Amino acid sequence: MSEGLNFEGWSCPLPLRDHPNIVMGHGGGGKLSAELVEHLFLPAFADSGAVDMGDAALIAVGGAHLAFSTDSFVVRPLFFPGGNIGELAVNGTINDIAMRGAQPLVLSAGFILEEGLPLDQLAAIAHSMGVAARRAGVTLVAGDTKVVDRGHGDGVYINTSGFGIVPEGIDIGPTRAQPGDAIIVSGTIGDHGIAILSVREGLEFGATVESDTAPLNGLVADLLDETRNIHVLRDPTRGGVASALNEIARASQVGIVIDERNLPVQDAVRAACELLGMDPLYVANEGKLIAIAPASDAERLLARMRAHPLGRQAAIIGRVTADHPGLVAARTGIGGTRIVDMMVGEQLPRIC
Amino acid sequence: MSEGLNFEGWSCPLPLRDHPNIVMGHGGGGKLSAELVEHLFLPAFADSGAVDMGDAALIAVGGAHLAFSTDSFVVRPLFFPGGNIGELAVNGTINDIAMRGAQPLVLSAGFILEEGLPLDQLAAIAHSMGVAARRAGVTLVAGDTKVVDRGHGDGVYINTSGFGIVPEGIDIGPTRAQPGDAIIVSGTIGDHGIAILSVREGLEFGATVESDTAPLNGLVADLLDETRNIHVLRDPTRGGVASALNEIARASQVGIVIDERNLPVQDAVRAACELLGMDPLYVANEGKLIAIAPASDAERLLARMRAHPLGRQAAIIGRVTADHPGLVAARTGIGGTRIVDMMVGEQLPRIC
Repeated sequence: MSEGLNFEGWSCPLPLRDHPNIVMGHGGGGKLSAELVEHLFLPAFADSGAVDMGDAALIAVGGAHLAFSTDSFVVRPLFFPGGNIGELAVNGTINDIAMRGAQPLVLSAGFILEEGLPLDQLAAIAHSMGVAARRAGVTLVAGDTKVVDRGHGDGVYINTSGFGIVPEGIDIGPTRAQPGDAIIVSGTIGDHGIAILSVREGLEFGATVESDTAPLNGLVADLLDETRNIHVLRDPTRGGVASALNEIARASQVGIVIDERNLPVQDAVRAACELLGMDPLYVANEGKLIAIAPASDAERLLARMRAHPLGRQAAIIGRVTADHPGLVAARTGIGGTRIVDMMVGEQLPRIC
Repeated sequence: MSEGLNFEGWSCPLPLRDHPNIVMGHGGGGKLSAELVEHLFLPAFADSGAVDMGDAALIAVGGAHLAFSTDSFVVRPLFFPGGNIGELAVNGTINDIAMRGAQPLVLSAGFILEEGLPLDQLAAIAHSMGVAARRAGVTLVAGDTKVVDRGHGDGVYINTSGFGIVPEGIDIGPTRAQPGDAIIVSGTIGDHGIAILSVREGLEFGATVESDTAPLNGLVADLLDETRNIHVLRDPTRGGVASALNEIARASQVGIVIDERNLPVQDAVRAACELLGMDPLYVANEGKLIAIAPASDAERLLARMRAHPLGRQAAIIGRVTADHPGLVAARTGIGGTRIVDMMVGEQLPRIC
């Protein structure tokens, strides 16, 4: 307790010393975020026995295995086409839990409110949290509210944390991709990011693009009912499909090859990305998942996905290879191949 | 998902309509906070099956009972005498879990960082979180980092969530106080609040007052080793001992009588409170607990508390009565009796 007032003597762990202060990119889910976890948080938390700070941790309790996850939401604006920060916060943590193959059970909600926030906005946000939780079959059981002075927040920041039960015999995680596996995405990519960008910047791209925010636990339950032989599940949020696949390639020490022509992208999202010089592979999703499973099961899983309301536009987008471990390559529309790297920072700040 | 952009039609539930916007007092742990939970959050979350949003929820998982809790920390300054926001965040959620009689097992950490935060400060904060978690025997297993634009945060906000296992046969909660029970506090009150206030306002009260931030799970384990017949445990944080006792009196529908002469208060804290016109009963603590148990066990529990490093100045401060249910009364130093009400807002904003 003696180190309270004193942070002298602390320096930035390398390679963070190149950036002595936090920059927006540290929250982008790309290389800077990964450096912060690897070089700052993990060494600090290792004292407590921390070994990994992935999307959802697996905890053995009695005879059960729980998947436990946390996520804070700072999206702006608070209300956007297709959703608001409240349902985004509920669905986001549900999805992190579901990506371990777990059935989410309970959530907590921690609010940081800014002085002056209209209570009708808070009531609308809280209501949609309750609706989202019920839709996913999850109960909001614990809460906390703090208030910060006007000018020290942005209306509402929400943390949701929660856990679910991993069914017996399920072993799904980012290290389990294997050469020969197929890569399936559950639907169109980039919807959430473009929805936020369009309302934030007042842009029009023909049709209104709505956020895809949705709880994926029902879809995951269907997939596991089809086969338990799924290796990896991942919701490609911040940093998009490209960042998610890069993390999986590194964690599993495998190569990944995708075919850009097979990527499902809404016309309006494609148009917006072309206009803005953005790549849909890097744009955030909030209601999509990537499933990686043996190629022999891929068609069955694809059919099962397409039978679910949240998976109608699912597609097989690539495969796992033993070549170039740690790297993601893409066959482009004109027949070439490019490396799909992880972004350093982010394309769009405050996306979730 | 269709209600995304639209919060028209939402109005403030009564009695919140008197305050159409969030004010600092909504985060103070007093009447305004309670109204927000009762009239806004609980009705909204009831859709999901929520029935209570207490400090830690009890969840049955397989054969085990878990206590699950969340807390966000927005204290300023980030570093203060006796601690910093990091160890406060770790200890705070550990204590909420411990107040159900549970042994905390794992914690998550969600960071909202402000652009421009020096990384050496973040490294110091993260380090002390690791140390605090190890001290309490808890593992930090899941994390999340978001970054907000300069001017939309205050350096660091931290959410911690976590759960622990409630031992078989333990039933501790705020509704269980019974007439005839004794009320014990584990040490001097008001230390944390005065420590924050002194450094924030640059005040001197003779000796430096240090925050009492500490993990109470070890002390709770000792008490439960002495007797499992403990009815209520409570850490009197925001709103102090007065607010905690009011909440217990209401939840248990009992009266509470305390004797102010028995309240342990450090000289420097008493001096600061007199100078500032504050009542130590309302000042926050971050390493103290209130235990309520049958009077016949009180002396044993008191002795056991005093044998623990965090309970050396423990004292029996009052008793539970069947009179005036829902109210807390105090015998004053000059022999009178006064009602100790819950505060409307708060004495000190941003205390935790």
